[in-house]
Amino acid sequence: MGSLDSNMAESVQFKPLDAQEFRKQAHQMVDFIADYYQNIESYPVLTQVEPGFLRSALPDSAPHRPESFETILKDVQEKIIPGITHWLSPNFFAFFPATVSTAGFLGEMLCACFNSVGFNWLASPASTELEIVVMDWLATMLKLPKTFMFSGTGGGVIQNTTSDSILVTLIAARDRALDAVGAENMHKLVVYGSDQTHSTFAKVCKLAGVSPANIRALPTSVDANFSLSPQLLRRAVEADVEAGLVPLFLCATVGTTSTTAVDNVEPLAEVANEYGIWVHVDAAYAGSACICPEFRHYLNGIERVDSFSFSPHKWLLSYLDCCCLWVKQPGLLVKALSTDPEYLKNKPSESNSVVDFKDWQVGTGRRFKSLRLWMVLRSYGVLNLQSHIRSDIRLAKMFEGFVKSDPRFEIVVPRHFALVCFRLNPYPHSGSADTEMLNRKLLDWVNSTGRVYLTHTIVGGLYMLRFAVGASLTDERHVVAAWELIMEGADRLFKGSAF
Amino acid sequence: MGSLDSNMAESVQFKPLDAQEFRKQAHQMVDFIADYYQNIESYPVLTQVEPGFLRSALPDSAPHRPESFETILKDVQEKIIPGITHWLSPNFFAFFPATVSTAGFLGEMLCACFNSVGFNWLASPASTELEIVVMDWLATMLKLPKTFMFSGTGGGVIQNTTSDSILVTLIAARDRALDAVGAENMHKLVVYGSDQTHSTFAKVCKLAGVSPANIRALPTSVDANFSLSPQLLRRAVEADVEAGLVPLFLCATVGTTSTTAVDNVEPLAEVANEYGIWVHVDAAYAGSACICPEFRHYLNGIERVDSFSFSPHKWLLSYLDCCCLWVKQPGLLVKALSTDPEYLKNKPSESNSVVDFKDWQVGTGRRFKSLRLWMVLRSYGVLNLQSHIRSDIRLAKMFEGFVKSDPRFEIVVPRHFALVCFRLNPYPHSGSADTEMLNRKLLDWVNSTGRVYLTHTIVGGLYMLRFAVGASLTDERHVVAAWELIMEGADRLFKGSAF
Repeated sequence: MGSLDSNMAESVQFKPLDAQEFRKQAHQMVDFIADYYQNIESYPVLTQVEPGFLRSALPDSAPHRPESFETILKDVQEKIIPGITHWLSPNFFAFFPATVSTAGFLGEMLCACFNSVGFNWLASPASTELEIVVMDWLATMLKLPKTFMFSGTGGGVIQNTTSDSILVTLIAARDRALDAVGAENMHKLVVYGSDQTHSTFAKVCKLAGVSPANIRALPTSVDANFSLSPQLLRRAVEADVEAGLVPLFLCATVGTTSTTAVDNVEPLAEVANEYGIWVHVDAAYAGSACICPEFRHYLNGIERVDSFSFSPHKWLLSYLDCCCLWVKQPGLLVKALSTDPEYLKNKPSESNSVVDFKDWQVGTGRRFKSLRLWMVLRSYGVLNLQSHIRSDIRLAKMFEGFVKSDPRFEIVVPRHFALVCFRLNPYPHSGSADTEMLNRKLLDWVNSTGRVYLTHTIVGGLYMLRFAVGASLTDERHVVAAWELIMEGADRLFKGSAF
Repeated sequence: MGSLDSNMAESVQFKPLDAQEFRKQAHQMVDFIADYYQNIESYPVLTQVEPGFLRSALPDSAPHRPESFETILKDVQEKIIPGITHWLSPNFFAFFPATVSTAGFLGEMLCACFNSVGFNWLASPASTELEIVVMDWLATMLKLPKTFMFSGTGGGVIQNTTSDSILVTLIAARDRALDAVGAENMHKLVVYGSDQTHSTFAKVCKLAGVSPANIRALPTSVDANFSLSPQLLRRAVEADVEAGLVPLFLCATVGTTSTTAVDNVEPLAEVANEYGIWVHVDAAYAGSACICPEFRHYLNGIERVDSFSFSPHKWLLSYLDCCCLWVKQPGLLVKALSTDPEYLKNKPSESNSVVDFKDWQVGTGRRFKSLRLWMVLRSYGVLNLQSHIRSDIRLAKMFEGFVKSDPRFEIVVPRHFALVCFRLNPYPHSGSADTEMLNRKLLDWVNSTGRVYLTHTIVGGLYMLRFAVGASLTDERHVVAAWELIMEGADRLFKGSAF
């Protein structure tokens, strides 16, 4: 490795950020990425590699000496790309899409460019202020009440994920409750969701010290479209109060992960408000749709809740990570999460004239993420973003029509947004296990072709396939081709062809 | 806004990710960024804007119709950049640097390009496996024992920030302890750090439900270079045990935020091991230096701890966010953090043959961050990265020499890495308040010039200036110029010139 001195000599020459080299290599990378986007349909959507494929293809330790950009890019093409599940493929219909856009990418480039760390206002004023502006813009697009906006009495902040959003609001609610009932009553706090609430809710509640026995996953049913019943909530809360417990927090979901079921915010909040329960609305996926007037009704009652989050990285073309959280009482977040070390003290913070976002989140450091949203909102305008939502929903409706037109298939739950939950119908006189087995076989086969990627869920005991439209590159022809492939799978299945 | 139908017509044409447009605009952005890096010295490092500057310069709501890329870029130049604190400026000596590099930027571009969501192995196998490879590479560079490596019995994961790393390890430790002593004894758990431990430690402990009364910030002193005393730790633990409490977790710091003080891991871990206390070592800043053999001794005793984290985004050229966490017993993380919703079930996960990183972190979604580290490690090689660390330390030593050569100044605490803590000496016969006031004035003046940015801290009652070398563009001439500016400030101060 050479002596210290010879390394020192080398160090004088090592320039990690030479503007000329940056320019040259970044241009090459742009072309590499543009080519990837152009050729993305040529890759199998769901990679078919085996566990360990990459570990065995790469050396055990980092190189001592530099390797060329060309060598590394070759490895990206030959070793990395074959092992990627292509989330941006127009034939990706799994989970929910992680949508992207040119403007989002440019915003991400700028965010990295400045690499400013906006833990407080002074550390990078533009970062904090643009976030304030963008969060108010989005709140306006969603017709959130002024009580959630900086221009009103609340405010919003960009978190990494829904988990973070739920965690920080839960902590704020928890600390407010413990102030009232005493910290020794921590074990009495109860939280509420449905059996359709995202699995991260229970995880985050446990993180925050809520007793696992006090996490209520209230049952839903296919008859009520898997929506949480306000009557059931009321009964659960009453029973808990009677048992001497302290109802703390309700997580209502607009657009659940399995089937995009919608909890009816207004009547749920009505119950919660009576008992002083903090209500959070998680609209991670479906929130984006609510920028269209015709879907805004899914947020009816939002003025009665305490916090609301949705993730533009899911459906608003914004790349990961980007979860937008609004709260009515930012002071409660700050009270629960603020720190004040000497080395971060500064006059603007002490004057209380500015927002220090480190006190609205778990970590201290934070990226200049608002740039990405700002670029998306300005580059496309509200009209194009609405069109984008409507176009995905139109394609989902089309797919729904295909399913309905084929008697071998059925729609399992009503479609609200751009997710279609469907399955092969039960054979006459067959059991549900057979139906599930057939549908599993169908899913395995279509995914094994590499031509599409779909996932499944089981809700209310029913195994179903999920067809989530919305990848940024998806067009009508991809949806048509996916349906044809699914029909081919059904044909093979029913004709008993080898899979 | 037009009818739904006319919007639908528009929607057919809106292509958020057109490869040709992407190519064109991303090339323009590369030039914009390269120009910014080239001209970065022309901007005031610490922006001089007033609170509200940007909010008042931007419209109240998002535009309805698209705006051109040129218009937006003009706003970045004229409205955003003037409000940025330029963390990448070679004259940025505040906090700790957030270091960057061409390779890191290219890795970030690739990460955005794929936008894959690697919550479990199948969701993007290359993302998980490259992270495994890179974490083992880094562990090897740091000479971590095999007990922390995937090729041994442990493993590592990329978190966003140190706060996340401490949170997840604390939860794993907490749940293990509660299994042993019963959940009803939550209020008996005690955690330990020093008065120099990062402020996020107490915040995260409170998040996890540790009683604020049980968070021990053990005092340090200037005589012991603000290092946590193992004897003091032992006495505190013994007292807590005697009081019927349950010692849970120790956060030792290698390179504290205020002064880069170093807690001596080996004897602290010895005490902790005796009492079954989980030991986490937070080397957020200084961990990077430990890739050089001559600094590795700061990690002596690391084989006795349970978890270790450092942030390559601080000193290893890797852009935000990137905190690397290793644990000896990944199973404890998974036990505390795993979720298993139906819609994420898949054969590789069920076979237990793969790593699902969602179970190692708070959130579900996660970016393909290992690409950034992999690009940095390969593009520069271990030798250049070591040279980069040594070069920064050489420049800090040079600055230390300047300070020592001027009798008006003193070094307040010994320099370990590339941070120099110094101050104007007390006037003879003056009080400490006068000294602090003088130093505050000096700091305000040098920062007001916009030519450098330094921050301060107060430790052991001593107000001091922090000069942190390491921004990726900093050369010898910038350090020399900064010192000359500081001397000019002192001259003005002592000559009574107007500031």
